[in-house]
Amino acid sequence: MFQKRTDLALEARELWQESAEKTSRLPGVKAAKQRQEGYPVTRVDILDERGEEALGKPRGSYLTIDLTTFWQRKPDFFERAVRAVGGQLKALVPAEGPVLVVGLGNRAMTPDAVGPLAADSVLVTRHLIAAQPRHFAGFRPVAVQRTGVLGTTGVESAESVRGLVEQVEPALVIAIDALASRRVGRVCATVQLSDTGIIPGSGVGNHRGALNRETLGVPVLAIGVPTVVDSATLAADLLEESGITDYDGEALQKSRQNLMVTPRDIDQQVRDLGKVIGYGINWALQDLEIDEMNALLS
Amino acid sequence: MFQKRTDLALEARELWQESAEKTSRLPGVKAAKQRQEGYPVTRVDILDERGEEALGKPRGSYLTIDLTTFWQRKPDFFERAVRAVGGQLKALVPAEGPVLVVGLGNRAMTPDAVGPLAADSVLVTRHLIAAQPRHFAGFRPVAVQRTGVLGTTGVESAESVRGLVEQVEPALVIAIDALASRRVGRVCATVQLSDTGIIPGSGVGNHRGALNRETLGVPVLAIGVPTVVDSATLAADLLEESGITDYDGEALQKSRQNLMVTPRDIDQQVRDLGKVIGYGINWALQDLEIDEMNALLS
Amino acid sequence: MFQKRTDLALEARELWQESAEKTSRLPGVKAAKQRQEGYPVTRVDILDERGEEALGKPRGSYLTIDLTTFWQRKPDFFERAVRAVGGQLKALVPAEGPVLVVGLGNRAMTPDAVGPLAADSVLVTRHLIAAQPRHFAGFRPVAVQRTGVLGTTGVESAESVRGLVEQVEPALVIAIDALASRRVGRVCATVQLSDTGIIPGSGVGNHRGALNRETLGVPVLAIGVPTVVDSATLAADLLEESGITDYDGEALQKSRQNLMVTPRDIDQQVRDLGKVIGYGINWALQDLEIDEMNALLS
Amino acid sequence: MFQKRTDLALEARELWQESAEKTSRLPGVKAAKQRQEGYPVTRVDILDERGEEALGKPRGSYLTIDLTTFWQRKPDFFERAVRAVGGQLKALVPAEGPVLVVGLGNRAMTPDAVGPLAADSVLVTRHLIAAQPRHFAGFRPVAVQRTGVLGTTGVESAESVRGLVEQVEPALVIAIDALASRRVGRVCATVQLSDTGIIPGSGVGNHRGALNRETLGVPVLAIGVPTVVDSATLAADLLEESGITDYDGEALQKSRQNLMVTPRDIDQQVRDLGKVIGYGINWALQDLEIDEMNALLS
Repeated sequence: MFQKRTDLALEARELWQESAEKTSRLPGVKAAKQRQEGYPVTRVDILDERGEEALGKPRGSYLTIDLTTFWQRKPDFFERAVRAVGGQLKALVPAEGPVLVVGLGNRAMTPDAVGPLAADSVLVTRHLIAAQPRHFAGFRPVAVQRTGVLGTTGVESAESVRGLVEQVEPALVIAIDALASRRVGRVCATVQLSDTGIIPGSGVGNHRGALNRETLGVPVLAIGVPTVVDSATLAADLLEESGITDYDGEALQKSRQNLMVTPRDIDQQVRDLGKVIGYGINWALQDLEIDEMNALLS
Repeated sequence: MFQKRTDLALEARELWQESAEKTSRLPGVKAAKQRQEGYPVTRVDILDERGEEALGKPRGSYLTIDLTTFWQRKPDFFERAVRAVGGQLKALVPAEGPVLVVGLGNRAMTPDAVGPLAADSVLVTRHLIAAQPRHFAGFRPVAVQRTGVLGTTGVESAESVRGLVEQVEPALVIAIDALASRRVGRVCATVQLSDTGIIPGSGVGNHRGALNRETLGVPVLAIGVPTVVDSATLAADLLEESGITDYDGEALQKSRQNLMVTPRDIDQQVRDLGKVIGYGINWALQDLEIDEMNALLS
Repeated sequence: MFQKRTDLALEARELWQESAEKTSRLPGVKAAKQRQEGYPVTRVDILDERGEEALGKPRGSYLTIDLTTFWQRKPDFFERAVRAVGGQLKALVPAEGPVLVVGLGNRAMTPDAVGPLAADSVLVTRHLIAAQPRHFAGFRPVAVQRTGVLGTTGVESAESVRGLVEQVEPALVIAIDALASRRVGRVCATVQLSDTGIIPGSGVGNHRGALNRETLGVPVLAIGVPTVVDSATLAADLLEESGITDYDGEALQKSRQNLMVTPRDIDQQVRDLGKVIGYGINWALQDLEIDEMNALLS
Repeated sequence: MFQKRTDLALEARELWQESAEKTSRLPGVKAAKQRQEGYPVTRVDILDERGEEALGKPRGSYLTIDLTTFWQRKPDFFERAVRAVGGQLKALVPAEGPVLVVGLGNRAMTPDAVGPLAADSVLVTRHLIAAQPRHFAGFRPVAVQRTGVLGTTGVESAESVRGLVEQVEPALVIAIDALASRRVGRVCATVQLSDTGIIPGSGVGNHRGALNRETLGVPVLAIGVPTVVDSATLAADLLEESGITDYDGEALQKSRQNLMVTPRDIDQQVRDLGKVIGYGINWALQDLEIDEMNALLS
């Protein structure tokens, strides 16, 4: 059978619900909705093995912030998005200790650039605190790593993060990466936070070594932004909307496999969301107003 | 009815053939096939008003070079592609006089960057010949314009080209732009040459003033590379392949209108094709081997 | 005799004073000092032929804003610099009519990039007003041109500006370029405004056709930022400071001719000053607060 | 006394000779000259503590390749420079084992960009060999690290290299960095190879932790290119050429401390030399012709 492709726990749950009887309950999974700063937030907790198997993702918490209305650019949309992402992050972050922020992905390939772009908006403080501990006493130590691309380094992201974790000894790794969504409407309009770690590059089709507590020895908070839709998944959805259910999934997969579907203004969208995420991380880690971040990062 | 979107004359002809009885002949249009350097070349001539109406394009010659096998990277694939494009161009170029090469499109938006990238591989000689006419006597004067993006200039490409044409007084304008194709397989695998001029930005959905003999006062040779597929067109083809013909075209159009479909490695493909086109232009205009171009452009 | 190199009228006047008796008055030249937003402003008016000959610059007004204290980054330093540059510009700008802002210089060569960088911070409105005249009624039409580099266009800046002026028909051209200063202390710490036009590229040693009312048919306001010191000029000053006055100027010139002296953090300084100038232009041309520019340009 | 600034062992020896009687011999130092591919090569060996003290550099071999004539662009100048650098490197490189190439410096600051630029021309093979050992059996495993800038990572280059060395376990680290020269004529015209390791950032004035066998546990081959002259050093040389020897060195140091002197076309020169070094490394490590490198790296 054709396997629809998604990196979002929210969508994995939707797919399960579509395939199952609507009345049945999904065992080992808990979901809840709320709002923060006007943006809807859905929380999916995968509690046990039954949940893991049903959704195909490791147990843990998955928070999805729906930024669809961000693009209407209503008053304070940017500040509200930063506080929404930052506020949710804050609840997942240990109260103390240094943090290593890892921007995964290829800066030169637009839909994969959200990690490095977010990293550029993170306030880097580790070296300042080391040099002038008293002057920067109010800040939390933050280092940033941009892992680059396997083809130009010869080193897997997981390896290079492991190497740096041993040097920096952070209390937490925050890893940012591009994801694939199933729904066009979620592309560049959703941020997923999870405490389960991440498999770099899964958004654009290359599976590499996982970044998580098992592989790095410290907790890993993953931030993912869907920037592409798998074109075979898009096609399958389209056929089903049109009432066709017995199509040849394998052929579909094959014929569309080297394509990706993105918004026309993906460049601008990825840049804007990268900034929201970088500032959201600052919001969660440092005691700063957004104005102060602007001044420090300009 | 849903209008499938294509900028390729070849595909406009295919669409006509699909909608008409296969036995009927398309009046006012002539087509022919050949090969150059191993790459298939299709020539479609639109001869009169009947042809213009049937294909929705102005009368003139449209040459489509099929570079699909380019990506297999067999021996000499690059050199052969340069000679294929350059050889076809040569037949369309007046024997003498200065040339203005215009790279249309947005360098910062990958599928739209093929024009500026091609321009970077064109040998610029006009100023050298002006400064040392004897030393550069063997070269044809070539100037290059990159029109940039309306949002950052406030000036339509057609306006800025018109302005420069009056200063440079070229015998020919060669304008390079990204196109939209109907077929996924043609994306970054096809180059269309035509002596009819071009409407900048049509590949990514913004129609601007035309660049042609009427608007510029000199012949305009257009070079187009399809870099995107309109996602509604892709969807419609998919439904038809699956036997559905009475879908709601308008709804389809609307639901997918801000999306584009591109190859996963569009960044690399656009860079490589830009170089083929720039070198092809050098091949057509200057008396140089590819090695010499490498040395002069490094 | 060794000719010290400067593009600043202020320094040309200093050089004259150094060479002449201190008691004599410079005929045909008037100078005055003031302050704006805490930054010192010197105005030199060259009134007639005597002044032109003494200072080696065409007659007109030259305003030099001294931004040395900008780099101390005291409160509001950016806003005050924008208002200082913008306020001085406002007095030189006609009250109405479209404006063409030209960023001269090579973006890829740091000390020459101030023109293109300033252009990136200018609010581009011409196309918006053309498309929705009522909605953008409050704005003045502004177009932007980045002329690029002769080696990659084959076209002199003066030619391409002339071509665009004929299309856009502005009431004013504002041209921004890098200059050479005589004094290390003025590099990236001074902005010179003048109503005399500009000779592109003089800051980095390439003289090209002038941009002024004679060549373009419209008034040309020049904004120049010294980003380099000619190394022979630096050396000559150093020798004179050490009491040596009979050095071999020609040999000095020759031995140092392909060098330039810049601040170590030239990249950051040029970026920051480019933004001050772009915003200063917006301040002079549009009825906007700096916050609003931030929002519109992000 | 004023300390003239140089990172080149060759120049340290010259400075010693200038200050000492010409007839005396420098103890603990051996020097020799040869030619490779038409380019002069000087070898300085610091043999013991006396040599270390006299030249202010750790004991080891320092090879200086004089590429002055490179810029005359005579036939085969690029290929000859690659073979000259590559040939000298080959003699210093262990015969087997994986190599980690480290590009030190700030890509965004031209005179500091030679490390990252060279890294871009190095053939990266480690991941290919890991994935398809048989297919890539002919290649030596090479990984590449670009350490980035302390201000945007919070991590010293020495820390991040140490982290990666533990993961990659190379038999050799090759570290490339920009240097400061004393002589204008050596800027972008000299390559220094040494088996003593390197202190990153010394070329542009920031001393950081050393990269050498002591700190990394593996041999470190340093490749340095002088891209700047310290402006106080330049001034001091100028005064001495003019016969002044009793100037105030401290005042000189202070007045010029934030300046650097570079060639006017530093951007192009740094790009070209980066490519020579990257290809030279490939020449030393892989069994490839320059044509093959071109094909693999395009």
